[in-house]
Amino acid sequence: MQINSDTKFLIVGLGLIGGSYARGLTKKGYKVRAITKERQDAEFALKNGYVEYAATEPEEDLIKNSDVIIFALYPHTFIEWVEKYGHLIKKGTLITDVTGVKGSVTSKIQELLPEGVEFIAAHPMAGKETSGVKNSDDKIFLGANYIVVPTEKNSKEAIENCKRIGEILAFSKISVLSTQKHDEMIAFLSQLSHCIAVCLMTCNNSEHLEAYTGDSFRDLTRIADINEYMWAELFLLNKDMLLKEMSLFIKDFNKLYEYINNDDVEGMYEMMRLSSKRRKKFNKEILL
Amino acid sequence: MQINSDTKFLIVGLGLIGGSYARGLTKKGYKVRAITKERQDAEFALKNGYVEYAATEPEEDLIKNSDVIIFALYPHTFIEWVEKYGHLIKKGTLITDVTGVKGSVTSKIQELLPEGVEFIAAHPMAGKETSGVKNSDDKIFLGANYIVVPTEKNSKEAIENCKRIGEILAFSKISVLSTQKHDEMIAFLSQLSHCIAVCLMTCNNSEHLEAYTGDSFRDLTRIADINEYMWAELFLLNKDMLLKEMSLFIKDFNKLYEYINNDDVEGMYEMMRLSSKRRKKFNKEILL
Repeated sequence: MQINSDTKFLIVGLGLIGGSYARGLTKKGYKVRAITKERQDAEFALKNGYVEYAATEPEEDLIKNSDVIIFALYPHTFIEWVEKYGHLIKKGTLITDVTGVKGSVTSKIQELLPEGVEFIAAHPMAGKETSGVKNSDDKIFLGANYIVVPTEKNSKEAIENCKRIGEILAFSKISVLSTQKHDEMIAFLSQLSHCIAVCLMTCNNSEHLEAYTGDSFRDLTRIADINEYMWAELFLLNKDMLLKEMSLFIKDFNKLYEYINNDDVEGMYEMMRLSSKRRKKFNKEILL
Repeated sequence: MQINSDTKFLIVGLGLIGGSYARGLTKKGYKVRAITKERQDAEFALKNGYVEYAATEPEEDLIKNSDVIIFALYPHTFIEWVEKYGHLIKKGTLITDVTGVKGSVTSKIQELLPEGVEFIAAHPMAGKETSGVKNSDDKIFLGANYIVVPTEKNSKEAIENCKRIGEILAFSKISVLSTQKHDEMIAFLSQLSHCIAVCLMTCNNSEHLEAYTGDSFRDLTRIADINEYMWAELFLLNKDMLLKEMSLFIKDFNKLYEYINNDDVEGMYEMMRLSSKRRKKFNKEILL
């Protein structure tokens, strides 16, 4: 199988990311159908032309008649779905996902799928602080990173097809990482950031802080309005890596605390210079 | 003295904030002059019409012929300037500033100024991750907070005039706080955020992280490209308050660490729900 203009996509789960995938693929002229639990989400996506068909049940014909199935579900729902309906997927179908952790998911999915159905994991590093298909928007992929996360069970062809999806959706940078490396990165770049934002928001009980804030605090806490079910699940699925990154952060935070406590200006300068030097690489313009 | 259309402003220090004040006041039709150390900054501001006159030395006539003097200098430079040239300021002139900490600055300035010259402290909660008059832009004040920080030595008239400056510059919300309360707020809302951003940027030595990042990490570290001289100075001038806020943050961060470590899903939910609830108040739209 090679993705071409006749490829039929099926998206399972029309949330923010599933919906944004649907919009992006449809815009590029692909045939896109969806399965999603809530009738209102299916209707919304249909009405707005994100998909040409949307079911609320795993219809056998629909599943069998798809070349690529993209799962955009919570990790545990993804696994449950494949346990229950995986046998309906026909040989030769390519399966991919958008799940935020890989170590505890990819190998399970690969085991569960029928012979001849290949699963290649992917992680679009894009999102919004809102959720649901109503907030979906394929423009969130512009300037964003897309990571393909193959295991030794994946074929070259599947890796190429998976990269192709990232290209169709117009991600700015497409990378390939091992499962282990991906989960390490995500623990640091995404999960730790969410932990910090939450704690910054909870740690001070003063009222009316919003009347005095500047943009720095707003930016650091943008993601503190958080979907607790999804993130608690992601944190626990990547627990060891996340705890390691949290410890690294605490170490440096305590170091800075001591520098301030001891009036150690040179120590502070050193940390701030390293920070400034590194941060310059993260400006989005550079990646575009 | 009451600010009116004939009021003559003098800005001391054309950096990002001084320059932005100059642009904003000039646009509203006020007479704005400046004193700034570097010839190139003076020339740039003049050439671009931010001010109608700019000197690189504290010219006596200019100082004496100003109704309001706004200091936009580093705290220690501000104090040194007033020590050296404060005697040139004529009776009845209103002095204000943009300094990020107040406790260790305001009372010193009030002591140093000649009889009949009133200093009223203010803090515009706006900025950018770039510096210098070339990056100045009065649009940074739109949607932003402005805090007047009077002491018991200040007159009602001065407080009103100081608020008026915030209004002229089109800040969205103007508040009044005591010195103590201001410094507490700032330790939490601004300084702690900067400490966190720096540590997040320094704590992980992996290379090429920029290829895998999402926007959450980018947002949390936007301010990690930091002016080390200014921030180290501000941190030490507000040391006790900042260390207190850092400790509060560490406490909650350790709590979350333990919840994750113990698979305590309910504990995580509780923190995330509090975080989400509080964060909604900080959306900028609400304040506009």
